[in-house]
Amino acid sequence: MSKAHFGLIGLGVMGENLVLNAERNGFSSVVFNRTYSKTEEFLQGRGLGKNIEGAETLQEFVNKLERPRRILMMVKAGPATDAVIDNISGYLEEGDLLIDGGNSQFKDTERRVNTLESKSFGYIGMGVSGGAKGALEGPSMMPGGTKASYDAIESLLTKMAAKVEDGPCVAYVGPGGSGHFVKTVHNGIEYGIEQILAEAYDLMKRVKGMNGQQMSEVFGIWNNTDELASYLVEITEICLNTKDEITGDDVVEKILDKAGQKGTGLWTVVSALELGVSVPTIYASLNARVMSSLKEQRSEIEKTIPSKEIEDFDLGNISDGMKPLFDAVVLATIASYAQGMDILREASAVYNYGLNMPSIAQIWKGGCIIRSKLLSKIQDAYNKDPNLKNLIFDDWFNNEIATRLDNLAKVVSLSTKAGIPVPCLSSTLDYLNSYRTNRLPQNLVQAMRDCFGSHTYERIDKKGSFHTEWMK
Amino acid sequence: MSKAHFGLIGLGVMGENLVLNAERNGFSSVVFNRTYSKTEEFLQGRGLGKNIEGAETLQEFVNKLERPRRILMMVKAGPATDAVIDNISGYLEEGDLLIDGGNSQFKDTERRVNTLESKSFGYIGMGVSGGAKGALEGPSMMPGGTKASYDAIESLLTKMAAKVEDGPCVAYVGPGGSGHFVKTVHNGIEYGIEQILAEAYDLMKRVKGMNGQQMSEVFGIWNNTDELASYLVEITEICLNTKDEITGDDVVEKILDKAGQKGTGLWTVVSALELGVSVPTIYASLNARVMSSLKEQRSEIEKTIPSKEIEDFDLGNISDGMKPLFDAVVLATIASYAQGMDILREASAVYNYGLNMPSIAQIWKGGCIIRSKLLSKIQDAYNKDPNLKNLIFDDWFNNEIATRLDNLAKVVSLSTKAGIPVPCLSSTLDYLNSYRTNRLPQNLVQAMRDCFGSHTYERIDKKGSFHTEWMK
Repeated sequence: MSKAHFGLIGLGVMGENLVLNAERNGFSSVVFNRTYSKTEEFLQGRGLGKNIEGAETLQEFVNKLERPRRILMMVKAGPATDAVIDNISGYLEEGDLLIDGGNSQFKDTERRVNTLESKSFGYIGMGVSGGAKGALEGPSMMPGGTKASYDAIESLLTKMAAKVEDGPCVAYVGPGGSGHFVKTVHNGIEYGIEQILAEAYDLMKRVKGMNGQQMSEVFGIWNNTDELASYLVEITEICLNTKDEITGDDVVEKILDKAGQKGTGLWTVVSALELGVSVPTIYASLNARVMSSLKEQRSEIEKTIPSKEIEDFDLGNISDGMKPLFDAVVLATIASYAQGMDILREASAVYNYGLNMPSIAQIWKGGCIIRSKLLSKIQDAYNKDPNLKNLIFDDWFNNEIATRLDNLAKVVSLSTKAGIPVPCLSSTLDYLNSYRTNRLPQNLVQAMRDCFGSHTYERIDKKGSFHTEWMK
Repeated sequence: MSKAHFGLIGLGVMGENLVLNAERNGFSSVVFNRTYSKTEEFLQGRGLGKNIEGAETLQEFVNKLERPRRILMMVKAGPATDAVIDNISGYLEEGDLLIDGGNSQFKDTERRVNTLESKSFGYIGMGVSGGAKGALEGPSMMPGGTKASYDAIESLLTKMAAKVEDGPCVAYVGPGGSGHFVKTVHNGIEYGIEQILAEAYDLMKRVKGMNGQQMSEVFGIWNNTDELASYLVEITEICLNTKDEITGDDVVEKILDKAGQKGTGLWTVVSALELGVSVPTIYASLNARVMSSLKEQRSEIEKTIPSKEIEDFDLGNISDGMKPLFDAVVLATIASYAQGMDILREASAVYNYGLNMPSIAQIWKGGCIIRSKLLSKIQDAYNKDPNLKNLIFDDWFNNEIATRLDNLAKVVSLSTKAGIPVPCLSSTLDYLNSYRTNRLPQNLVQAMRDCFGSHTYERIDKKGSFHTEWMK
């Protein structure tokens, strides 16, 4: 009996779809799941008639694979992943390769790469994005580890990945935990964009009284623009236009307004803090989820500090695609990408990841949740200048910001007056306004610090450290 | 020769002042510094004629102290602190007590308390605030560790501490690293208030064209109010009114607008993220420092996206204490405290610190950098309800917010139009607006997540987990 090309551990939705994807691309496969009944169910269901067999034990699983073995783990991040590695290690032989396709913390991956590679096994920490559909039809994949390990699975991954005009959405990211780090930042950007679209929806609903079908129409218009054409805008158009099967109302209005925020979104902001990178839009999106989770508290406070009646104000209208709001959403979306790319740039330097910035933009252009037309512009920007400090320094993005900033300010200003929270839009405005202000007021902070702690300060008119005897 | 009551290691400004404080309060002292010349200099200078002697070696230092020894370390946080502990441990005897008065990371303190207490030594991690002047005249102190260790130094600390109407500004904080944790959060609140005052200064200067003396007058008025009377407002009044010795110009205008942000401010936000606590005002203050550090980038972008001419707008006038701006600053200051206290409340539960919230407010009322009249109101609020979810639920604070929110919105809205970044003010507004909004738009985020990842959602009209087949 011939041995299989590819092994998968963990038959969750993502695992099932990835193995079906591999098999469709010509890789005979073996699957293993902790509970064998799940494996049987899969083999008699979606796996039926495919070149996929099952294994009851890890030993049997390993024995059914050709050498060097290529094994993808799709299990829960954290201790569960360590447990699988521990359990399977005894059966592996030199040159065999484990791939972690879960949402692991990049520092965990760093540790595992070092441990496994030192035992002559290969280890790849790979971010996978695209949801269930992406996994089946072609995801975006961000593999990190040694280049030799990547080379051993390149043909498999390039066949499985989503394809865009300039190639498959997978490439070698870099050493250690860099693959999972890039996926983490991808998710941080995703948090940002989701919240931005939620704020736009909130304004259309509360200020203009628009219904789901009308708002859906606006997102449809936006999805036909160079700036906002993207998967998330596309599904927002769909979500807002979906009716509840029983009541016929907009389903979205029946959903509880609480979103969770553990994991990758959190890690993105913590990494940014550790690296000293400014990510106010992404932080605001994470924090909006925290605020959403305080549902009972909010409900109580609304009674003591009620909202004012909201006056209608100019957000544009459906026929012009809500122009001022569109501009605001474009700039906040650009800010989310810009902040995410800045984390990558800084991490690449500090963690010695040697990231290829245009290549990362390319990987994200298809298959993943944040795929968008803007990513081509981002790819262009980093191709033009691989050391770009921030997207705001690229001519195209700079012009976008310059021409749309007044409308962002207008939307924030009016939302503010109406008492509607727009944390991502307003954080973006402060971010851009700070960027274009040569003289910020932190000179006063330095004065205070010198006054109470003799911390000294630098001056604008001469070099050196100075201290003042501050007095009335 | 009789032995000394108290030992100090590390003759920086804070160390010198703390030992002078202890000696003044009747505790004979021995001092040690890594370079002995510094010790000699001190003994022949500020220490002259005082009941303070020096030691050349750690062994001599330890020998000169009565048992059980009480030793305060004022050395750089991190490896330097570990080095001192390692070097002195060999000379210590059962029951001797080390106190770390530096700005240590609370997790480091946690580790050190465990290690030292297991060796029958005492260990206290103590936050000290008040700057150089506070250290000499009476600081605010936040000691954490075992209660037995605290009891051994209570008389010393209560004599050294600042005094307010209801007692000294020191009390047992809690076990492990809780003392340093509370100090960390103190610094996070401090970051917030410093940035808020900087934003107020920026608006008065740029919108109203006020000079240092005029702005100083406004801060003087504010310092006479129940809401803003505080050390930081007091020193801002002083800083803005101080002239450059040579040119006679306002010194503040000569200071470079770059502020650093490593250490405690960063740890506060990371802890808040890990604990899931909403701290947008504090994050904004930290990030404002990050943006300030991008001086060259800002200078470059100002040329491509220039500011508009700023139109004069209504911030009030000097005679009414700039009423709208005052209201904005009051609410942002309240938000900084509220967010800091929320971190403490959550940390107390998660890390089992058993923090006494009114006691912490009391410790901060005198001696430290964030001392203010507001802290009495905070103390009252937690005395009334030790389990208060957030200051916004206390009647007094709730009323402050309800009556001043329109003016905060007005200031943010107008600043926004003028293109002036006000990250702390606008984050506070979004924070308060989110708090008073029963229905936030994260229902759409949940819809998106169910659409691309089948993550399921909860509903407002029935219990359970639901999934929708989203379609056009």
